[in-house]
Amino acid sequence: MSDLQRDLRIAVLGVGMMGAFHADALATRTKGARVVVVNDFAAEKAAEVAARVGARVVEDPIAAINAPEVDAVLIATPGKAHAEQVQACLAAGKPVLCEKPLTTDEESSYALVQAEAAVGRPLVQLGFMRRFDAEYAALKDLITSGGLGNPLLVHCTHRNPAVPDFFNSEFMVRDSVVHEVDVARFLLDEEITSVQVLRGVATSSAPEGTWDPMIVVFETESGRIVTDEISVRTGVAYEVRTEVVGETGSAMIGLDQSLVRTSTDGRWGGQITPGFVERFGQAYDTELQRWVAAAKQGTIDGPGVWDGYAAVAVCEAGVKAVQTGEKVAVALKAKP
Amino acid sequence: MSDLQRDLRIAVLGVGMMGAFHADALATRTKGARVVVVNDFAAEKAAEVAARVGARVVEDPIAAINAPEVDAVLIATPGKAHAEQVQACLAAGKPVLCEKPLTTDEESSYALVQAEAAVGRPLVQLGFMRRFDAEYAALKDLITSGGLGNPLLVHCTHRNPAVPDFFNSEFMVRDSVVHEVDVARFLLDEEITSVQVLRGVATSSAPEGTWDPMIVVFETESGRIVTDEISVRTGVAYEVRTEVVGETGSAMIGLDQSLVRTSTDGRWGGQITPGFVERFGQAYDTELQRWVAAAKQGTIDGPGVWDGYAAVAVCEAGVKAVQTGEKVAVALKAKP
Amino acid sequence: MSDLQRDLRIAVLGVGMMGAFHADALATRTKGARVVVVNDFAAEKAAEVAARVGARVVEDPIAAINAPEVDAVLIATPGKAHAEQVQACLAAGKPVLCEKPLTTDEESSYALVQAEAAVGRPLVQLGFMRRFDAEYAALKDLITSGGLGNPLLVHCTHRNPAVPDFFNSEFMVRDSVVHEVDVARFLLDEEITSVQVLRGVATSSAPEGTWDPMIVVFETESGRIVTDEISVRTGVAYEVRTEVVGETGSAMIGLDQSLVRTSTDGRWGGQITPGFVERFGQAYDTELQRWVAAAKQGTIDGPGVWDGYAAVAVCEAGVKAVQTGEKVAVALKAKP
Amino acid sequence: MSDLQRDLRIAVLGVGMMGAFHADALATRTKGARVVVVNDFAAEKAAEVAARVGARVVEDPIAAINAPEVDAVLIATPGKAHAEQVQACLAAGKPVLCEKPLTTDEESSYALVQAEAAVGRPLVQLGFMRRFDAEYAALKDLITSGGLGNPLLVHCTHRNPAVPDFFNSEFMVRDSVVHEVDVARFLLDEEITSVQVLRGVATSSAPEGTWDPMIVVFETESGRIVTDEISVRTGVAYEVRTEVVGETGSAMIGLDQSLVRTSTDGRWGGQITPGFVERFGQAYDTELQRWVAAAKQGTIDGPGVWDGYAAVAVCEAGVKAVQTGEKVAVALKAKP
Ligand SMILES: [Mg+2]
Ligand SMILES: [Mg+2]
Ligand SMILES: [Mg+2]
Ligand SMILES: [Mg+2]
Repeated sequence: MSDLQRDLRIAVLGVGMMGAFHADALATRTKGARVVVVNDFAAEKAAEVAARVGARVVEDPIAAINAPEVDAVLIATPGKAHAEQVQACLAAGKPVLCEKPLTTDEESSYALVQAEAAVGRPLVQLGFMRRFDAEYAALKDLITSGGLGNPLLVHCTHRNPAVPDFFNSEFMVRDSVVHEVDVARFLLDEEITSVQVLRGVATSSAPEGTWDPMIVVFETESGRIVTDEISVRTGVAYEVRTEVVGETGSAMIGLDQSLVRTSTDGRWGGQITPGFVERFGQAYDTELQRWVAAAKQGTIDGPGVWDGYAAVAVCEAGVKAVQTGEKVAVALKAKP
Repeated sequence: MSDLQRDLRIAVLGVGMMGAFHADALATRTKGARVVVVNDFAAEKAAEVAARVGARVVEDPIAAINAPEVDAVLIATPGKAHAEQVQACLAAGKPVLCEKPLTTDEESSYALVQAEAAVGRPLVQLGFMRRFDAEYAALKDLITSGGLGNPLLVHCTHRNPAVPDFFNSEFMVRDSVVHEVDVARFLLDEEITSVQVLRGVATSSAPEGTWDPMIVVFETESGRIVTDEISVRTGVAYEVRTEVVGETGSAMIGLDQSLVRTSTDGRWGGQITPGFVERFGQAYDTELQRWVAAAKQGTIDGPGVWDGYAAVAVCEAGVKAVQTGEKVAVALKAKP
Repeated sequence: MSDLQRDLRIAVLGVGMMGAFHADALATRTKGARVVVVNDFAAEKAAEVAARVGARVVEDPIAAINAPEVDAVLIATPGKAHAEQVQACLAAGKPVLCEKPLTTDEESSYALVQAEAAVGRPLVQLGFMRRFDAEYAALKDLITSGGLGNPLLVHCTHRNPAVPDFFNSEFMVRDSVVHEVDVARFLLDEEITSVQVLRGVATSSAPEGTWDPMIVVFETESGRIVTDEISVRTGVAYEVRTEVVGETGSAMIGLDQSLVRTSTDGRWGGQITPGFVERFGQAYDTELQRWVAAAKQGTIDGPGVWDGYAAVAVCEAGVKAVQTGEKVAVALKAKP
Repeated sequence: MSDLQRDLRIAVLGVGMMGAFHADALATRTKGARVVVVNDFAAEKAAEVAARVGARVVEDPIAAINAPEVDAVLIATPGKAHAEQVQACLAAGKPVLCEKPLTTDEESSYALVQAEAAVGRPLVQLGFMRRFDAEYAALKDLITSGGLGNPLLVHCTHRNPAVPDFFNSEFMVRDSVVHEVDVARFLLDEEITSVQVLRGVATSSAPEGTWDPMIVVFETESGRIVTDEISVRTGVAYEVRTEVVGETGSAMIGLDQSLVRTSTDGRWGGQITPGFVERFGQAYDTELQRWVAAAKQGTIDGPGVWDGYAAVAVCEAGVKAVQTGEKVAVALKAKP
């Protein structure tokens, strides 16, 4: 049996909610993949997931990466651990799918861009799974095919029903807005050059000092404007919409309109997607499946380390924009 | 001031819910119209409406029709009074807007067709107000302009939230399905030749012996099929939809999708039209306004006595179809 | 016949597109109203409209206002004529419905606020007809009834298919954005305190130096944020949407989803409202009908002179915001 | 490695469009499955698919079923070959996923019901993949959870853009309506007791003697009514809708409303699903994935042989109903 036919043997680092979700997807829904190593700082959690997916536990993340039976690595550890772990993957020449953020500061992110450039081939893929969602893919195709003419504006909406109190405005930028950073870059195929945050009236359920909702405004290299409403305590459901306004038409995704139900309360309509699994579960599966196929060939098939670096740089400017209320420029370093 | 410029002076016969609604519309929202006479078998109700619209009460309906200051007549009395009252209008040569049904049996309806033919010009307009609704008008235009190709099928849905217990299956045909009889004839521009009623499981709120919902199937002269779901105890709201399936496309009206609201219950959607006033109030106003303009010229501008007769004939066949479960042929008499 | 029963006799000043539209509506669709005087600087146009509606021409606008048979005045002349004409109406104690803008500068607008205050009762109504549109009214009701909780954000979209070349960015603010200025003030029931304009990539059909589209950002007294996308050369149709995001839910109007058609090109969907008549014709009629009823009582029933002044003040700030790219504060004078 | 962990080794019989689609899905998207044997009466086609999925060709279908390395069988051969092939699977005790129809006549279908009963455990799963579609599953859940109250009516719509000329009315019943037969039985959880076919005006692109569209009416054991519009030459796209009307509300799926696009032609809307792969591709994948998991345990996870038999019985009645225009009773044999 050739190398391409046998299963890719994967180490999963970090099996909190996201990592466990990925481990299960690799074990039960991803053709050509096998989880062989599980690592987590919480020994019990690691043991539980390892047992479920038929893998062994390795206590040290770097040892897990370097384990001889490991072909590729999925990183779902906390962001502050990413820099060292991704470096280790690059050093070992092993493909890695790293959940966002790439790292927690711009310098270390750029260091990874340079490190991968030194390796000479793409090994680091970022977990921006919306690129694999059917609606975002259709929207991208529509733009690419010229169906909207030159895209002029992008309007994004990201609403969560509820979050814990530590989800302050800076956190909202780094954890939620980061998705729209990648969506904007993906759809428009250019870099973001500034960020401004409009801070209005906060919902009463937001903790003191947290602006929620906010409207984030991005400008891009060619001068396009991207708006992003980020609300994370709506009490409603998970609403993610994107509208692109082009010279010859506009298109909107995320309207949730498939199942229409009318009931005794005299309303028509349907359930709003309750959470990210219902909305993007299929995108995650597609992301993993395509990454596995690429990793067997020693490469990636999705957003790369530069996308991770750019997102970190924009989000750091975004955090400054939250704090100052001013427009903050984003100056990316040279792309290798 | 010429005759066309002065207000049309109208007698309103019957001021129950529908008649009072029309009297108010004529008095407050219909340019060029004035209610001068009000008649109702309930003296108190007549006095109340007359006072509100600035008219005098005439106790006898035929005297009201023949009052010298009356230019035209609006009939909203119970159906069994229609035959004599419409005859009186024809005898007086006065334009009349008659609420459905034209009469309560086929013979007397056809007698009015003949009576109007003897007069020699159209004086009798029927209250099938959906023809004046913007959505139905757009659907008709779409068909007429060839936008759907040859129309092959029509699917109708008519759902009421609740009705009194006397609303049995025969009543449902005569009072509700009658609207779809006219819609089908209006959209397809041909006569109905048979009726069949599919009687399934009744909702638990229907009285013993009442089939609710029913599916009524019409065939037309050219062999087209029209289906009509009639449900009058849905507990939901007022839902009236029509879909036309043509050779080159289909079109649906009645989807209620203008105001979209998302709320704490995690649903998207909006209010379903609660009742006929919200759904068709504007159509009623348009019907009256156009009838007033036509009546000043001694004619009609809407469905006429033949449409009223055809509806009665089809509904009588429909009632037989309800009772027998068989397909019942409709044989219209000669059109004068 | 009492004063309230006889027709309100109206002078229409300015019968360009908007004024002629109003004159026809008053003459043919507005119960209780009669156009008795028509005035326009173009004599031929005035004669034509006067003949159509059965009125006489008065060549001087101030003489038209003061004509003894005139009960009330509708002003649809160019904005720069408004200040003097509205003053004349106030001096004559005659109710006036003035198309936007109230005047072309903040000082003269505020002078009218003071002049009306000196009269002691509301006589000046502004032509912000969206307040009479069923969807905007439903949205306002939803907010007022608490159905969305505290409203936090308002997102507006205003897209025209095409405009003449003189429609530059400043004109877009004064002529189009002005509607959203009133919508925001109407829905949120508070004043706007600053304006910022985000100027991105212009569509290729915009003349040199014109930003089209723009995103206008308003802040209100309580700190709420209102965004408004204004695009006037989309090549598509007339799209006017408003979404309000509240603490407990959100609501959107303007989705155009009633008639759904599927055709040979493999798309579902329907016609987008082609222009303002189709979208707001009914609102104009309602505005006139309600104004006529109020004017008979010597008052108004809609947005007043303060609303006109506030709109002018915000738009002037908006024009500065277009030119500078900076956030421009709006400081309203004292409300009498 | 345990039996449950190693790949299920599958023989695919028939690699026309459907079979090749399944073979590719098993080889590239179905975790835990491997195609080891390919069979087709067209040797070249068999060789091509076998090469692509890494399997060997076996020329005789019964030999393919009985090949020692084969754990389970997927049958996508023409319907007339099914009876013998399914019998061989049962004889070999091997799980089989059989595309519809189970067989081409009621007798042979019932014989398989009895044969499986003799084996004593479910081995035969039918390819009614809509049960695995997210929208149908949500609709089923809604009914099962009581969200609609007692379901009273089901309205189905099945529209194809185009078909070859051999797709006559009888073929439409056996090939297309058969899906709604299973949908109705699945949603209502009871058997169909009669079929009637309403044959109206045919589209001009239908060959002489073919009724297209038709409306098929089913009655169920409890007396519920199911309507099904079947149109296979609409020239539009692939439209599959189902609405369930219950005592306390109704629900509709298949509205295609996710991606909304507005363009220069002044229409809003989106692409209608162009074909079954776009509409149900995910359902097929889910069907295969779940069948593979069940087959490893020697059982099925989806519609079984009784569902296949019932569908054949109803469709045979449907074909008679097409031919006679009468209501035709369906009398199922005893369920073992
Ligand atoms: Mg992610
Ligand atoms: Mg009526
Ligand atoms: Mg206006
Ligand atoms: Mg199938």
